Order: sequence, then structure tokens, then C-alpha cells
Amino acid sequence: MSDILLSYHVRATASEIDSLARKIAIEQSVEVPEALLSKAIAERYVGDVESIRQLSLNQYELCFSYQYESVEGQFNQLLNLCLGNISMYPQLRLVDMQLSDKMLSYFDGPQYGITGIRRYAQVVGRPLLATALKPRGLSATQFAQMAYEFAVGGGDIIKDDQNLSGHVEQYKQRVHSCQQALQKAAQITGRECLYFPYVSAPYEQLSEIFAWTQQQGIKGVLLAPAIHGFDHARGLAKAYQMIYMAHPSFGGSYCISPYEGISYDLFYGLLYRLAGVDISIFPNPGGRFNFSQTDCTNISQRCRAEMAHLKANFPCPAGGMQFQDISVMSRNYGQDTVFLLGGSLLQHSGSLKQSTREFLTEIERCTNQTQPQAVKNLQHADSDEHISSCDMPTQDLPKHRQLDHLCFDNFTWHGRTAEAYKKDNFASFLAIQRTELIGKQNEQVNFELRYFEIQAGGYTSLEKHQHTHVIIIVRGQGLVQIAEQSYHARVNDVLYIKPNCIHQLSNPHQDEFGFYCIVDKQRDRPQVM
Amino acid sequence: MSDILLSYHVRATASEIDSLARKIAIEQSVEVPEALLSKAIAERYVGDVESIRQLSLNQYELCFSYQYESVEGQFNQLLNLCLGNISMYPQLRLVDMQLSDKMLSYFDGPQYGITGIRRYAQVVGRPLLATALKPRGLSATQFAQMAYEFAVGGGDIIKDDQNLSGHVEQYKQRVHSCQQALQKAAQITGRECLYFPYVSAPYEQLSEIFAWTQQQGIKGVLLAPAIHGFDHARGLAKAYQMIYMAHPSFGGSYCISPYEGISYDLFYGLLYRLAGVDISIFPNPGGRFNFSQTDCTNISQRCRAEMAHLKANFPCPAGGMQFQDISVMSRNYGQDTVFLLGGSLLQHSGSLKQSTREFLTEIERCTNQTQPQAVKNLQHADSDEHISSCDMPTQDLPKHRQLDHLCFDNFTWHGRTAEAYKKDNFASFLAIQRTELIGKQNEQVNFELRYFEIQAGGYTSLEKHQHTHVIIIVRGQGLVQIAEQSYHARVNDVLYIKPNCIHQLSNPHQDEFGFYCIVDKQRDRPQVM
Repeated sequence: MSDILLSYHVRATASEIDSLARKIAIEQSVEVPEALLSKAIAERYVGDVESIRQLSLNQYELCFSYQYESVEGQFNQLLNLCLGNISMYPQLRLVDMQLSDKMLSYFDGPQYGITGIRRYAQVVGRPLLATALKPRGLSATQFAQMAYEFAVGGGDIIKDDQNLSGHVEQYKQRVHSCQQALQKAAQITGRECLYFPYVSAPYEQLSEIFAWTQQQGIKGVLLAPAIHGFDHARGLAKAYQMIYMAHPSFGGSYCISPYEGISYDLFYGLLYRLAGVDISIFPNPGGRFNFSQTDCTNISQRCRAEMAHLKANFPCPAGGMQFQDISVMSRNYGQDTVFLLGGSLLQHSGSLKQSTREFLTEIERCTNQTQPQAVKNLQHADSDEHISSCDMPTQDLPKHRQLDHLCFDNFTWHGRTAEAYKKDNFASFLAIQRTELIGKQNEQVNFELRYFEIQAGGYTSLEKHQHTHVIIIVRGQGLVQIAEQSYHARVNDVLYIKPNCIHQLSNPHQDEFGFYCIVDKQRDRPQVM
Repeated sequence: MSDILLSYHVRATASEIDSLARKIAIEQSVEVPEALLSKAIAERYVGDVESIRQLSLNQYELCFSYQYESVEGQFNQLLNLCLGNISMYPQLRLVDMQLSDKMLSYFDGPQYGITGIRRYAQVVGRPLLATALKPRGLSATQFAQMAYEFAVGGGDIIKDDQNLSGHVEQYKQRVHSCQQALQKAAQITGRECLYFPYVSAPYEQLSEIFAWTQQQGIKGVLLAPAIHGFDHARGLAKAYQMIYMAHPSFGGSYCISPYEGISYDLFYGLLYRLAGVDISIFPNPGGRFNFSQTDCTNISQRCRAEMAHLKANFPCPAGGMQFQDISVMSRNYGQDTVFLLGGSLLQHSGSLKQSTREFLTEIERCTNQTQPQAVKNLQHADSDEHISSCDMPTQDLPKHRQLDHLCFDNFTWHGRTAEAYKKDNFASFLAIQRTELIGKQNEQVNFELRYFEIQAGGYTSLEKHQHTHVIIIVRGQGLVQIAEQSYHARVNDVLYIKPNCIHQLSNPHQDEFGFYCIVDKQRDRPQVM
């Protein structure tokens, strides 16, 4: 078996995909023209293209394999291998990573993980409840009071808000006050509420701050991998034996575009876990962010899936969650989860201690109701409930038939097939396909709707006719010649071509140029110029 | 003046934009519900919305101001302030950052910059020539031979390829051999070719490696800010007084989506410079990547613009550049640039020494031909050359007239205005606008093309008529009821509604649902159900 399998979703045409796959394999390993590669180096270091799978017309999944030597057990180098230079390729997204046990043997993973944190927190059988010290601007005494109330109310983890910047003395004052308050609370509750301060200080102050924090008896820190650096944050937490809670700040840019970057579960799940994260914070659906329940469920599965010797870590949904969401969240995530509630806990009642108790009671109530298998059943919770002809495999449909709903999939339409443009006048046009959408299957229309696609360098005939054209650009961009005028037309531009007006469409670009064309059903034959 | 001004491009409707602006200001500063904020904290920490500027129908530029206290001179906290939680907001992109002299006084910026590196390299009056040691898999001796030939050929900077991972002993062997070869070359050329090894080792080994590297007399290192962490890489380079060349690996995800992340110039220009980068590598247009010349020119301007006490640093275009590109590059970038050429230099002739000489001669020839003002004139080099009605301001066009080219701009069309849907039957529909695109301005068509947009929660009348509809979804998604069937329709789905078939379109989602509708010009009146 290969040591490293990396899968990507990429956009490419059928004629480009093989060379793109090879280009990526070289870009990510040796980055020199093929002619300069010896056979030995090519075999040892260049990635093997394991599979090319077509997802839709111009969308592919590429899978590459690499040997251990490509990374040599260095986490920094794993990031460079999986999304180095190709992080600058448009419409390329890393969607899966499989590592052999040999590769995994070089990564420690979480130091504490779910089991270790439960041991410190002395909590079994239910999700943990966490909150954040905020808003910034409160005094150290006020934060300490918050920490105390949360802890005596039974709360499990309190973390700094990531906006609590400040110079070293401010940090020390806040952290010292809060930790003292938590120790006082522990004398009442009989167990320690864990406190994770956020360290935003410059590199030059980190050793002093971590050493001091450790001396205070504090068990963990909050760090932001995208800000601190993945391996740097890992190394800091390990050097000081701290529980490592990871904040998503500055990291969302990796996941938020659907076509680039890294899939949610790979980023907040697998990469965080490999980099030693013990608790991975990410936004729960329905709050202020746009993660779907499927994304969040997938992240949670990456956190807790079996993976050689690596400890499972806690998924930690957060952000705008309310008291009434606890029931659904308990079902969605199961008990090995940290629920991070900020604003709603602070707003719940006049007393933070009382609010914490009520939230914990609700968590316990919901956990008892929840079947352990619930998470698995919810994986497809946000899938489409509406019946559609699109649910039928294309091969089961007649090639052309009258349909109410032509579902679109990357410039093909369900129940319709692309055909070569006009069979005659061979020399007058180049590299065009036509899809008849409406009008050829006995639909009762007086017009026809067609989709044309011009490949790079292609063009339509230069022609004129009595009937008019209405054109809507739908893919890429191209040139439209209408009489003496040349237009640069882009997606959703609408063009009108008058009767007997000489016209031509062409594609001087690398990407496909596609457009809808509406014409009268009864029309004259074009006159090619 | 404010200490920090941050500008974003966001997508929102006119009715949402004010509350979105406030939401961002709170998200990025205190992150609690407004009700929990004291007046003093709100005034001191929550960002002020300085301006809201409409760019197109649903596209806005938002500008926020923050005071010094929000960051306290911490670079990590600046990243959190500018793109912390909101890195997870869809369709939000950071496009500008202005810092007061007070803010800038807390950042050292590049340690060496253009002037410092020119002093070490002993080169004035022309761009510097750099190359990379690759492909991985060569022996230390082979790399040393490459370094030697490049240096005696007159090359200025040699860097490790970012794929040269390996354990500490491999690193030391390669770096030691190359540095010895360069010192030997210096005895011939009379000046030192600078060598920047790439450090990919784990956190635990960094101190040892940096100290050892410094002892070898090596003046700089190659680091990847997105991998190592911005402030971490800055701190390492500063602690060991190394020239800091920055590689873009793993960082492209911040820029590559046009709607999210950070603009090219801000990321590779301003943020890198603030974080102490002396040489900023980014892909030149026309190679294997998709950066435009405008993007690259803007990055270069950020590298070299006046900015308080911060030294200007070198822009370093790289990636797939050829010998014949030097002329254009010299004009595009001017002399304060590092040209990084890898594969093309290695392939140019049988001798790397000879190739280096020829490239340098070409660089000198082109620099002598270039006017220093050239860069400024090229800023708009890739703008559209084609004449179009879209170049006219909308207010100069009659509201409706027959036009060949209706340019699209975020669901408005040049020369067309949206109007309220049907004036009668008030109770039967909700929250719809109609734009008549083709058919109402004496175009000689037998059909009409209209654009309808349904806001969140809106719907069309439930109705039927003898004439047919052909519908193409173009924005968002919605429900289409056709007789007994309900379809969930998405962008570019095509729908056909038969004669006398009861139908209705509705939008149960938060985002706008927009579609083209094609109908016969002569048609019967709908019968509302």
C-alpha cells in the first residue's frame, strides 16, 4: 500500500485531465520540467496517479499516491505536499487524505484526547459544557467572577475569547485571577473546571508566557492553528504538556469556497488531529455561520474515527447556539462532544451559576434520551426531500423526451445530450457543441431553447438570417461580433441579434464559452458569409 | 484618524447591509449579543462602520475602523481582527488595510529589505536573478555543483526547493556542501551568491537547525508563512538575524477564490511585509498559475510603497517563466525585483554557468531599455479592449431601449430596470421583481425574455394559462410546483410548463431566487387559482 493517498476535486475537460493529473504530481513533488527528471527520481518522488474519476462533465476526482520519503515524518512537509503550490491552482480542492500506519507512526496526534480530558474534567457519559470569557474590556476581577460562577454552576471548560489580546502583564493578571477563582470553586465542587487562556503574544514572549502559565497549574491553552502555524502550535502545546484547544480564527478561508482549499472535515477534523489538537472548535449550523450539519457531522467523525495509535479528540461545535438547540445537538453529535456556548449562556438568566446549572441539566436530560447510533442516522439529514426526475440515473432516461424539469449538472442537462454543431459547412466553424433543450420534443412552444458551447479557440459560422437571435451567456466569456461591433460578453450578458445582421461568436480564451440561444421555431436558413 | 481601517467586499441585499456591517463589527471585536455590551466597552472596542459603498446590486464595500487597543501591537491579533471568525463568512473578502503611523510603529517590518539585500548581494541597477535547488532526489554533491555553477555564472540568490524535506542530517549535509561551494565561487567572482535553505523541520528541532545554519555563515532562510505561521516565521528570522524569503506554499487558498479570503496584494504584499518578509515569492502570470498581471503589479506596489519606517521589500515573481519573458517582466516590475527562474534556467543550455550568464545579460539588456515609469503605465494592461455599451454609465442610457448587448452586473442589466411584478391580483403573490430584457423595445422577436427575482419567502401567483413557460434558473434555488409535482430547482436547471398546467414558483430560502422566463409574445391572460 502507498503511504499517502491524496484526493482532489478539480475542474478540467476530458482532453485536459490526464495532463493536469501529471502536472499536479510533478508540481507537488519535484517541480521541474519532465525532461530534467532522471528515471530514478521520477519513480521515487513523483506522485503516482492512482485514479481519475469523472464526477460530471468537467469535474473530476484525482487520487495520487506518494511514498513516505516525500514527507519524512514532517508535518510541515505534509501540508506542502497536499496543498503547496497547487493551493494557487483555481478550482482545485483537497477532499481526502489516507495515511498508512507507517506514516501515522511519525505523528503523535492529540496528547490527551477525549479520554485524557475526561479524566481531568472528571466527566463521563455526557457532552462537556464550555464557555468563553468575554466581552473584552471587562476587568480581570470581572472575568474571575465569571469563571467562578460558571465553575460552581458545574461547567467543565472555560476558555478566553480569542479577542482578548493585550500585553504580557494584562495576560498574567487575567489568567492568575481566573485560575485562583477556579481553584476556589474546585473546593466547593470537588472537581476542577479547566481553563484555557488564549496566547496571542509575539514569538519573542512565548517561552516566558508558556512557562509562567504552566507554573500557574493551568492544564491547557487556546491556540489558532491558522494564525500560529500548525506545527508551531503543536510543538508549543507539547513542549509545555498543555491540552490544546484549537480556534478556527483566520482558518475559514481554507474551507469556505466550495471549489478551492480543503474540505471541512479534512481541515477541522483530520489535519487538526494529526497536528495534536485535543479539542477542535468549529461553527455549528444555524448560528452566525454557514457550515451545514453534514459538514459538522463529517468533522466529528474525523475527530473520533479509529486511526492507528492516534487518540480521538473532541469536536467542539460553537457559535450562536441556543438553549433550545441542545436537544438537536445531542442527537447530532453524541456524547463525546464539547458544547461551547457563549452569548446564549450569558444571556440565559441573571445568574451565570444558575444558567450553567440549567444548561447542564438540559444536556444531561437530552443525553439520556439519545440513542448512541443517532449520529450515524443523521448523516444525510440535509439532503433534498423533493422528488425530481434528476433522481433517476441518466442512463434510465430516453435521450430526448419531453420533461418538466431538465436538471443541470455542470453544463449537461438530465435527459439531454450534447451533439456536434451543424453537419454541413464544415469549414465555417470550429469546436462547437449544441444541446437542444426545449422545442425538439413536441413541447408546445413557438421558440426553441438551445445551449451552445465553444471550446478554446473555436467559433461559430459568420452568418446572417432573417430570424433573430437572443443569446444569454452562461459559461465563461467570449467575443460576439454583431455587424461592425465586437463585444466582450460575460456570464448573464444578454445579446440581441437583429434580422439580417451578420454575426459570429468566438472563444479566444482557455476556458469554455457557453451560451443559451433562443430562436423562433419556424425560421429561415442561415446564409454563411 | 483611526489606527486601523479594514475594507471588505461582501454580498448582501440593501435591506441586510446595515445589520451585516454591525454584525461584523461585533463578531470581530467582542463577540457577544449587543444586549450584553456596556456603553463603555461598545465605544472602545466595537469597530465603527466608516462607510458602506454599493458596488453593484448586491455587492458592497464595507469599511471599519478600530483603535490601537484592538491589537496592542500584536501581529497575531491583527490577523484575528482582520479575518478571524469572519474568515468563515461566505462571500466576504478582505480587500484593504490602512494602518496609522502609531500602529506601524509596533511592527519592525523587513529586517533587510531591498537596500539590505542589495548590499549583501553587491548588485545595483538591475533585478536580481534567483534560482532553486531542485529536483529533490539529487545528492548533496549534485546540489553543491548546481550552486557553484549558478554562482560563477553571476547568479545572485539560490534557494532550496520547498520540496526538499528530510531529516536533520540530510539538511546539514546539503546546506554545508552548497555553502562551501558558494564560498569557493565567491573567491572567483569576488562576491557572495546568497543561499536560502528551506527549513521544514518540526518545532522541536528548529532552535538547533537555525543556530547551526547561522554558524555556517548563511545569511537567510526560505520559510512559508502559511505553513510556519506568520508571526512564528517572522520571529525565527529575527531571532537569528536571517534574511527572510517567503514561499507561497499552502497560502494560495487565501487568495484564489474571488469572493472570499484576502486580495492578492494585501496577502503577498502588505501582510508579508508587516510580518518581516524581505523577499515575497508569488507566481508570475503566464506560467502554471492564474494570477493576473494586475494582481502581480499590485503586490509589487505593496512591497515597495512608502509605509512609515518599514523597509521596502523585494517582489519575487516566479513559476514557469521563460528566457523570452524577461523583457516583458523587466517592463512590468522594474529593477527592484527578484526574478526567480527554475526549470527554464536549468533547461536553457547544457551548462548552468553559461545559462546563468545568458539570463543575466538579458536582464541587463532589458533593464537598460526600460523606463523607470513603466510599471505605473502597466497597471491596467489586462483591461478590456473591446468597445461595449457597458462602458457607458447607466444614467446616460434611456431606461429601456433596443440594445445589442445587455451587460450583466449582479442581476441588473445595463439599460434595463427592475420593476414590481404585476400590479393587479395583489394578494396572490409576494416579494417579486421583474426585469423585461428582450421583447418590449421593438425587438423583432416572437417571444419575450424576462428576468424574475423572488426574495426570501416570496412566491408567484398559483396560476394556469394556455401559453407555455420555459424557465431557466439563474440565481439561488427555489421550489417549482408544476401540476402535482414539486421540484427543487437550482441554477441552470431548465423547466417547461405545459399549456393549462397549474404552476407556482416560490423561495423558501434566505437568498434570492432568480430565473429567466421565456414566453410567446402573443399570449392569453393567466387565470389565478
